Amino acid sequence: MLGVNELKLFASIRIKKFRDEKGIFLVEGMKQVEEGILSRRKCELIVFRTEDGDNFDEVLALARHKGIRCEAVKNREFEKLADTVHAQGILGYFRMPEKEILDRTSTPLIYLDRINDPGNMGTIIRTADWFGFRQILLSPGCVDVYNPKVVRAAMGSNFRMAFHEGVTELDLKGICESGYSIVTTELDGKNLEDFKPSGKIIIVLSNESHGVLPGLASIADVRIKIPGEKGAESLNVAVAAGIIFHKLFETGSKK
Amino acid sequence: MLGVNELKLFASIRIKKFRDEKGIFLVEGMKQVEEGILSRRKCELIVFRTEDGDNFDEVLALARHKGIRCEAVKNREFEKLADTVHAQGILGYFRMPEKEILDRTSTPLIYLDRINDPGNMGTIIRTADWFGFRQILLSPGCVDVYNPKVVRAAMGSNFRMAFHEGVTELDLKGICESGYSIVTTELDGKNLEDFKPSGKIIIVLSNESHGVLPGLASIADVRIKIPGEKGAESLNVAVAAGIIFHKLFETGSKK
Repeated sequence: MLGVNELKLFASIRIKKFRDEKGIFLVEGMKQVEEGILSRRKCELIVFRTEDGDNFDEVLALARHKGIRCEAVKNREFEKLADTVHAQGILGYFRMPEKEILDRTSTPLIYLDRINDPGNMGTIIRTADWFGFRQILLSPGCVDVYNPKVVRAAMGSNFRMAFHEGVTELDLKGICESGYSIVTTELDGKNLEDFKPSGKIIIVLSNESHGVLPGLASIADVRIKIPGEKGAESLNVAVAAGIIFHKLFETGSKK
Repeated sequence: MLGVNELKLFASIRIKKFRDEKGIFLVEGMKQVEEGILSRRKCELIVFRTEDGDNFDEVLALARHKGIRCEAVKNREFEKLADTVHAQGILGYFRMPEKEILDRTSTPLIYLDRINDPGNMGTIIRTADWFGFRQILLSPGCVDVYNPKVVRAAMGSNFRMAFHEGVTELDLKGICESGYSIVTTELDGKNLEDFKPSGKIIIVLSNESHGVLPGLASIADVRIKIPGEKGAESLNVAVAAGIIFHKLFETGSKK
């Protein structure tokens, strides 16, 4: 059973301030909770809707086997905890990792420049994971990667990713001293087809409506664009990320 | 001024049944309304929030110049009409095109197989537009392309697209008689890198959680996959579309 105070605490996790204070984030849905249990993240609690319990036999058995606390709650309480209206009936609360150390031998690094749409952020994380890219740097002004909507769109990929938050342009310059070159996406860049990635690179993906931060544009080593017929004014940033990541994967740029 | 009955009629347009009955769809936001006015679609009405009127001087002047009816409404009425909570304060009502005739010389054709997420649908339309692909075939079970959430994610690209709805597997077989081959995306397909598109093709994009319709898989001429490291179980379908469209664009498969 969850006490009134516990219910209040876990319901507050949907809000960034309390999430950061407690160091815990929320994961919704059976598949994602299961991925979390099997990951290196610590699971603090699993909550499920009493009447849906039978659907979760396997994942609950796995959790209990690992010594994770599992609690059944009534629908009324579940609704207070869940972020989605049509949540599947199971939630997991996981501990955020300690500040990760940036692996400066790995390439490519992904730098997200003020990506504030949760769906785009989650989709970029999922896409990076598909191609096996494991380190994501986030500028100030990005949506929180532990926002429930981001976690939902990431579909479990967040458990396999190292996030480095609050990375400024100055920090990025520092990282470049380890031998990275910076690649930005700009409308007047050179065609992606003519881009032959070599050495260690940091791929910068910028907020579509704001474009690349001026300070970033000025330190870019290579500026690329995805060619098109210019019907649409721009590509969605997660789609652009997918096309660029695929190019890097295809050319064997990953280390 | 909008009368009570008119207000009721236009508010109902957010619902598919009434949208189809009246043959009108809703577009929100200044840029998209402007794109609509400049497109070949007929604009029936523009509605704006009285207090925001000054922001829309240019687009309203353009509309009036074209003889389009423009009406100011109070915030209370605007909220009844808009689909988003944070709508910019301007809406356009456009006539749906007559049933389009499929151009059987054009390639690639895009076939969407039960894509039901409005955001994904809109992003695919926007991405197709970026690469200059103009014809989209939709299977039964796709989300309505005139759903306000789809229109929003398409960011004006819907005005440049020819949609062919309710296309069944049988219809697709018929279309193939005009010399098309069918390309599906499947997890056990051949690597996208090894795919050398030639001749006229129909690219099939399927709902991520259901996979390709069995009847479709059996008539596919080529089955491709986007290689990855298989961290994530799948790619988002709009991201996959972007990677495939880019490949087709890059290899000059468009006619």
